[in-house]
Amino acid sequence: MTTQELVAQIHKKQSFLCIGLDVDLAKIPKHLLEEEDPIFEFNKAIIDSTNHLAVAYKPNTAFYEAYGIKGWKSLEKTIKYLNTNYPEVFTIADAKRGDIGNTSTMYAKAFFEDLAFDSVTIAPYMGKDSVEPFLAFDHKHTILLALTSNQGAFDFQTKDTEGKELYKQVLEISKSYKNSKNLMYVVGATKTEYFSEIRKIVPDSFLLVPGVGAQGGNLQDVCKYGLNDQVGLLINSSRGIIYASNDKEYAKAATDKALELQQQMKEILEERK
Amino acid sequence: MTTQELVAQIHKKQSFLCIGLDVDLAKIPKHLLEEEDPIFEFNKAIIDSTNHLAVAYKPNTAFYEAYGIKGWKSLEKTIKYLNTNYPEVFTIADAKRGDIGNTSTMYAKAFFEDLAFDSVTIAPYMGKDSVEPFLAFDHKHTILLALTSNQGAFDFQTKDTEGKELYKQVLEISKSYKNSKNLMYVVGATKTEYFSEIRKIVPDSFLLVPGVGAQGGNLQDVCKYGLNDQVGLLINSSRGIIYASNDKEYAKAATDKALELQQQMKEILEERK
Repeated sequence: MTTQELVAQIHKKQSFLCIGLDVDLAKIPKHLLEEEDPIFEFNKAIIDSTNHLAVAYKPNTAFYEAYGIKGWKSLEKTIKYLNTNYPEVFTIADAKRGDIGNTSTMYAKAFFEDLAFDSVTIAPYMGKDSVEPFLAFDHKHTILLALTSNQGAFDFQTKDTEGKELYKQVLEISKSYKNSKNLMYVVGATKTEYFSEIRKIVPDSFLLVPGVGAQGGNLQDVCKYGLNDQVGLLINSSRGIIYASNDKEYAKAATDKALELQQQMKEILEERK
Repeated sequence: MTTQELVAQIHKKQSFLCIGLDVDLAKIPKHLLEEEDPIFEFNKAIIDSTNHLAVAYKPNTAFYEAYGIKGWKSLEKTIKYLNTNYPEVFTIADAKRGDIGNTSTMYAKAFFEDLAFDSVTIAPYMGKDSVEPFLAFDHKHTILLALTSNQGAFDFQTKDTEGKELYKQVLEISKSYKNSKNLMYVVGATKTEYFSEIRKIVPDSFLLVPGVGAQGGNLQDVCKYGLNDQVGLLINSSRGIIYASNDKEYAKAATDKALELQQQMKEILEERK
């Protein structure tokens, strides 16, 4: 998917909501456990009931790998379901991969070709030759971890590295990578005070923002400093939406929560006109 | 597996060789492609013909994920084969994972419980709460990326970060993590000049060393500065061994290459007595 198509979808739906499909068998409604593939059935219901309100879906691969081959099958069915039924939706494999050149090429094939995701999240620690193999794919997007929403972000990411915080080095240096136009960045909503600084370095890039809701980030603050001319934000919510209820009405509860966020986003977009 | 068991195996085999199972269908002998699971058949033959010379095997998960569910099955069969037939061998899932707390717990379950690997490689960028869920498993080992063997390592890892290179911050800060006794570190053999510095920070830890051979690292130099009282090194070779030949005699060729390295290791261990 091109960035232009993503932006068009955002304007059409008046939403820049991404829903994280981090599905834990211990947290989904009990009655689904009788299904042959409870995770896929859960995802399908969530997707069917929220796709008019969300522009992106982001399965975190860990939650699928934890169930071995069965989990990998659920992931494959989920992405196929999205690509077949809702091709306008932007899909993110939240995999946080990154390895040396020839290995990154294998990962890129796994996520961009075999599973046919539009994008994948990547850790920057191994540098240029671990990222560029992903950037080589046309109309595919590589979402680099910059400033994450967890406490451990302060271990290294915010440390002064040759005159600026490490995450700023990541933003700046990655701009020099080949095909860097295919880059987006992960920036946690729990650190809104950083957004204006980040926009100085990457004014035009899309930012994927976890941490609104469950982790305490504030949508208004993120938008105040993070929005750009083509919106440039994908706000992710996982648990707040998918686990809004764990009874039989879970899909309806997810719709309600997604609608709440979409309405706030619509207002924010209208205010900017 | 405990560290003591690993050290005992090293002394018994007079080897600290790790063989990387980075299996690419384009590079294995053509006749194997007729098998139902060529990757597993290839791994099985390599393992059967080298396990007396190697103490560890390290499948890089990217090479399996690239083939989707089929690849994941090959990985599952490979680790099961190792655990059943060669339980004394140390197994490494070279996965380079790392995510926020609850997600890291899912990854730890995937690799330590579902697949039953002895260890997994982890990227440090997200800090403490992304690493500690792995460290919580008894007799399992978390191998943190410190200084990798690729060119991109110079993008961030060697940059001065509050007075020292970032990879040294990773070594030092990770020592304060809960259950840090379960940590090992990846240090590339292409940067032997760094080994004595690294040993000052982590004198007792095992180091997993890629980059000997194909990537140009020198075994003698690595050992000179990297060995410690309990050996403390696992030297990985992937392509140099598994692709030593791509005709029907590939397993024999792999044995020869592994034997060459094991003999060098034996000499080095004997010299130290």
